[in-house]
Amino acid sequence: MLDRVSDDRQWQVFEDARSLRAAIRKGDFAGPTAGQAPDFLQCNLAILPQEVAADFHRFCTANPKPCPLVAVGEPGDPSLPSIGEDIDIRFDVPSYRVFENGEHTQSVTSLADVWRDDLVVFALGCSLSFEGAIRRAGIRIAHAEGGSCVAMYRTNIETVGAGPFGGPMVVSMRPFAPRDAIAATVLSNRYPLAHGAPVHIGDPAQIGIADLFQPDFGDVPTVSEGEIPVFWACGVTPQSAIRSACPDLAIVHEPGSMLVTDLPVEGAN
Amino acid sequence: MLDRVSDDRQWQVFEDARSLRAAIRKGDFAGPTAGQAPDFLQCNLAILPQEVAADFHRFCTANPKPCPLVAVGEPGDPSLPSIGEDIDIRFDVPSYRVFENGEHTQSVTSLADVWRDDLVVFALGCSLSFEGAIRRAGIRIAHAEGGSCVAMYRTNIETVGAGPFGGPMVVSMRPFAPRDAIAATVLSNRYPLAHGAPVHIGDPAQIGIADLFQPDFGDVPTVSEGEIPVFWACGVTPQSAIRSACPDLAIVHEPGSMLVTDLPVEGAN
Repeated sequence: MLDRVSDDRQWQVFEDARSLRAAIRKGDFAGPTAGQAPDFLQCNLAILPQEVAADFHRFCTANPKPCPLVAVGEPGDPSLPSIGEDIDIRFDVPSYRVFENGEHTQSVTSLADVWRDDLVVFALGCSLSFEGAIRRAGIRIAHAEGGSCVAMYRTNIETVGAGPFGGPMVVSMRPFAPRDAIAATVLSNRYPLAHGAPVHIGDPAQIGIADLFQPDFGDVPTVSEGEIPVFWACGVTPQSAIRSACPDLAIVHEPGSMLVTDLPVEGAN
Repeated sequence: MLDRVSDDRQWQVFEDARSLRAAIRKGDFAGPTAGQAPDFLQCNLAILPQEVAADFHRFCTANPKPCPLVAVGEPGDPSLPSIGEDIDIRFDVPSYRVFENGEHTQSVTSLADVWRDDLVVFALGCSLSFEGAIRRAGIRIAHAEGGSCVAMYRTNIETVGAGPFGGPMVVSMRPFAPRDAIAATVLSNRYPLAHGAPVHIGDPAQIGIADLFQPDFGDVPTVSEGEIPVFWACGVTPQSAIRSACPDLAIVHEPGSMLVTDLPVEGAN
């Protein structure tokens, strides 16, 4: 569920979210969205049938750290006018994963053939904004520098359930020297739509992680001497809850292939 | 240098800083100031001869975490109009310590007989404001609940020297469950005049503390299973720098016996 979009092509860099989305819609951009339109908020995507949408909406509201809600669409409506005037969610994300009855059945670059009139779109904040703030503070983020995917773990922290949605919180881990851990805590707290402050620091066993070097998702982390692991609530939590809820249809973004909104990163959070 | 003001008398509780200072000046209040006028900023006090005052001022500015400057008086002037219209520093603190050539020679309740026309008054923020914010967030602070003094340690973190002032940073340590440590970090960062965010978290050895249970000042801490030590820059740092600078005269507050200002805690920070 968490392989990155692997693509060796060199993609144009867009400064502006709207022109990036236009290029995605025309098929001119299919790369990862990290580094694109860096001043604009990027979102995780979840699209669910109306039958379970109200439950999922309550699940997000009850678990704002892993599921920071940025926008919710009207049933059957592929637009999200509050976060981008021209968004048509069926065409504006580079790549989507389609789940049927909990199974990943296909990955597609357009939802034209998959869209249904009972679908409800959820845009959820992701960690890119706080990682950007940490980097702008001059603090290195190990996995990003190594070009690998952040390590993620299932924990013993239970989410607050809603209807069929529930299960354990998934966290991402970034190791820092202690004073950088403090700065990263303070900085990430400023971005509640990017999961906010960490949920744990230090001993992984306290949140049910048996081995830091055997993540459940992402890559095996590198932790240097004297570094302390810092754990943030992760956007895989709602994806995992959706899989176990097993709706007949669910659509999420392909990892790394996000919905880029018109909301300024600094203003939105 | 760090015994608390021990006093079993029951003191009136003042809501207002000005009436508390008036009572202190009249000799009607000589107790510890913690818990008094809780909405108003309390300050550490340092009074130094003009000869070294400029150096000490630069020392504070260069080390804002241990030495958060709230106000500096004019040479020879015992008033501090920017933080309390009627302050006369010679009479408005319950108890003072007088150091001559680096030695603690007397403790007094008035500076009438000690005051000189070349003295400069420095008011420095203390940790009370951030401890209050942590408690209002529903987080317990172990040493305060146990009625003991916070544990303090000399570290291997060097301050930035200025003239005769320098030496190691002294830190205070409060142990918390990891998620409370995160909240305490975020909360204390909002109070730069109360030492701000922690300077270290986790392994004491990384900042040169050999044994957490042998503090250099204060009481031996109680650390519960699963708690992580969190270290803040401490107001003992400037006191320690003053002692090693060895001016012919230096006056500081008696520990726990602070200058209570008219600045609202929330507005000042």
